Amino acid sequence: MLQKKLPSQDVFDPTLTRLDERPADTAERLNRALEPEAVIEVAGLPVGRAVDVFDQPFLTRGARLLRAIPAEQARAILDGMAVDRQADVFRQAEKADRDALFPLLDDDVARIVRTLLAYPRDSAGSLMTTEFVSVQATATVAEVLDHIRAVHHTRETIYPIYVINPSSGRLEQTVSLRRLITASPGDPILTHCSGRAPITTTASADREDVARLIAHYDLLAVPVVDDARCVLGIVTVDDVLDAVVAESTEDVQRFGGVAGAEGPYLEIGFGRMLSKRAGWLCALFLSEMLTASAMQHFETELEKAVVLTLFIPLIMSSGGNSGSQATSLLIRALALGQLRLRDWWRVAIRELPVGMTLGAILGAIGVLRIAVWQQLGIYDYGVHWPLIALTVGAGLIGIVTFGSMAGSMLPFILKRLGFDPASASAPFVATLVDVTGLVIYFRVALVILHGTLL
Amino acid sequence: MLQKKLPSQDVFDPTLTRLDERPADTAERLNRALEPEAVIEVAGLPVGRAVDVFDQPFLTRGARLLRAIPAEQARAILDGMAVDRQADVFRQAEKADRDALFPLLDDDVARIVRTLLAYPRDSAGSLMTTEFVSVQATATVAEVLDHIRAVHHTRETIYPIYVINPSSGRLEQTVSLRRLITASPGDPILTHCSGRAPITTTASADREDVARLIAHYDLLAVPVVDDARCVLGIVTVDDVLDAVVAESTEDVQRFGGVAGAEGPYLEIGFGRMLSKRAGWLCALFLSEMLTASAMQHFETELEKAVVLTLFIPLIMSSGGNSGSQATSLLIRALALGQLRLRDWWRVAIRELPVGMTLGAILGAIGVLRIAVWQQLGIYDYGVHWPLIALTVGAGLIGIVTFGSMAGSMLPFILKRLGFDPASASAPFVATLVDVTGLVIYFRVALVILHGTLL
Repeated sequence: MLQKKLPSQDVFDPTLTRLDERPADTAERLNRALEPEAVIEVAGLPVGRAVDVFDQPFLTRGARLLRAIPAEQARAILDGMAVDRQADVFRQAEKADRDALFPLLDDDVARIVRTLLAYPRDSAGSLMTTEFVSVQATATVAEVLDHIRAVHHTRETIYPIYVINPSSGRLEQTVSLRRLITASPGDPILTHCSGRAPITTTASADREDVARLIAHYDLLAVPVVDDARCVLGIVTVDDVLDAVVAESTEDVQRFGGVAGAEGPYLEIGFGRMLSKRAGWLCALFLSEMLTASAMQHFETELEKAVVLTLFIPLIMSSGGNSGSQATSLLIRALALGQLRLRDWWRVAIRELPVGMTLGAILGAIGVLRIAVWQQLGIYDYGVHWPLIALTVGAGLIGIVTFGSMAGSMLPFILKRLGFDPASASAPFVATLVDVTGLVIYFRVALVILHGTLL
Repeated sequence: MLQKKLPSQDVFDPTLTRLDERPADTAERLNRALEPEAVIEVAGLPVGRAVDVFDQPFLTRGARLLRAIPAEQARAILDGMAVDRQADVFRQAEKADRDALFPLLDDDVARIVRTLLAYPRDSAGSLMTTEFVSVQATATVAEVLDHIRAVHHTRETIYPIYVINPSSGRLEQTVSLRRLITASPGDPILTHCSGRAPITTTASADREDVARLIAHYDLLAVPVVDDARCVLGIVTVDDVLDAVVAESTEDVQRFGGVAGAEGPYLEIGFGRMLSKRAGWLCALFLSEMLTASAMQHFETELEKAVVLTLFIPLIMSSGGNSGSQATSLLIRALALGQLRLRDWWRVAIRELPVGMTLGAILGAIGVLRIAVWQQLGIYDYGVHWPLIALTVGAGLIGIVTFGSMAGSMLPFILKRLGFDPASASAPFVATLVDVTGLVIYFRVALVILHGTLL
């Protein structure tokens, strides 16, 4: 919420000291406390104060705390809360708590909350509030200001004002409180609107798209409209900020190969933690089994030249690392709209020379290492050591180039197939590159070592 | 900026159609255009319109475009721009452009811009604007509203109002325009303040901390104060939103093993792209060379049982993958403040059983695969195949457990050493786990296969 709508505790009171706690800090402390202690504290809060605390979007266990206190107190707190926060509390609640608390809501509010709950997770509909300021397009500035003064206590924000066509109910224009401050009271409100069609979104839009819209157009809120362009609610910049932080968590975790683990780390139970990780881990393991098959295929070569196996981990990991770098770059470039699907070839012709150069650098280091170890007598790679060094060097060029290409193309392929490019994870890229990397290495070895070791 | 401070094009004009472009869209189009075309378009824009376009934070090449148009026009555009955007343009400019444009600034503005430029990248100081509304603590509500009406054209936002002690110049209180709308004009402004010490930040604070503050306390802006608690400027929620998106990019890229590549992918030159990637890739390669040393150490075992090498890539990658999962979870938990340094042991006692269970699942699949391949005659692992299967299974338990533990502890260790936990990358974790993974595998093999194969 842009601002508490019931600023009960937020009026100057000379008895308040600096030690007086902010609602956000109380909420954080409640999150950390054991549940019985949290219940006692909530039960002891004055209602206005409790409303401020429950209006904090990051308060966890909201439904459980409300259910544990006397019903009348819970009803009063729910009644004072912003409607989008009420919906949040019900969304996060377990079924038993939801069923126990729902009867405490007023019928009108219950209907709105039920509508908000019906929107899919992470959609604009699930982020929006229905508590915004709307006025008819025929109003004057003075009428709008009077309306704001009358309703502001029950509105989440009063800074963007939505101007509605009186007959169709469609959104016509938006105007900011800022502009009205300097306007003549008698002016029709429409003379202070830009005349442009307002930026809007739909209830099913993804939170990431809403965030992009708000960031791009520097908005304090974006209205969510239905097919008839009637305003269903608004998503405010602070809800979007929270959403962007959540999205960032999801992106890093997905890139690490975890299926969207939600909630604080320590609150994820053992079973849920396993299920978030085991799926991907098993899928990667099964794919990676192809490396065993590839190795079996080159069994004869392996037995003839065991020395080749010494460099397998080194070479494979280099391919995976270069792929992981390229994927992380491309995931973000696609997420930020810097690149479109059709730009894939521009990326490909850039990654090819970059990958080859990186491969050549690593290859040179690899050759040097073998030569130095051989010359200093640290390890004996046999009489054909220059050929082995050459195999390692050439193999690295091939594998790092392939890693960069595969890693950079993977996000495009996922996007083309209708997936989020950010579902490409570092372990996924590494697995993709490992099998091919082994094949490249052994093929290079066959060419270079043919007639000597192989 | 929360809102254009010069809303030149933003007044109702019946000749405007829906095709009339928003400044943000013009800026985006300019970013995509070739430079000569962009220059021609900018030169043709009315000044007010050009100011709106240059006020868009994501406009690139701002300084080059300004330098390419007539100096008087550039001066007028710079003059109209928000001061934090002027600083942005100079920050991103090349030295020649900066030197050419700086003389166009008024002396006062030049001084402010120079101060803003002196703050480190990604600090609150570099994000803040000096164009905010401040009033003396002795003012009445009517005086504050009059002041806002007088200055609002040159202020980025007028919604948060900063109340200053008239003698010391220190920040006393903050109050929102929202509250003043319903206040009696004769009230002293202080009676509408909360009495709490305002939330503030310092110029050197990291953008991530500023974002957390704004998100946590649902602020429209946070004031940046000096040691004497005088307000230097404010950071607004929309600047923070942009910063969070940028931070998210940096986090994903760092996790992928890329040293903070800035700017759109296609605009990063070949040399810069190499330097962003080669450093980490070489460091990882050098560390990964330890795998070759480990393999050399177990040379005798390798030669006796080449069959063991078949599973090296499979086993190593499983350790890396489980480590990467754990690291991504912990990086975010630490970034979001869900965990503190002292919680490391709570994480360790959770990761141990999770890692062992995940390892047991993969181990079971591995054993099954060997048994099936052997029984179906797809591959012959030799007479001791049950022992080899056991080695692979037990090795996986050990390696996945170690991977989960190492991956989850790494962010804590980095934090303890004073680094950002988010500098732990998937390739880094994989490298860390690979060497130890090999040693675990061979040790397990020595125990299980002693007296048979080894």
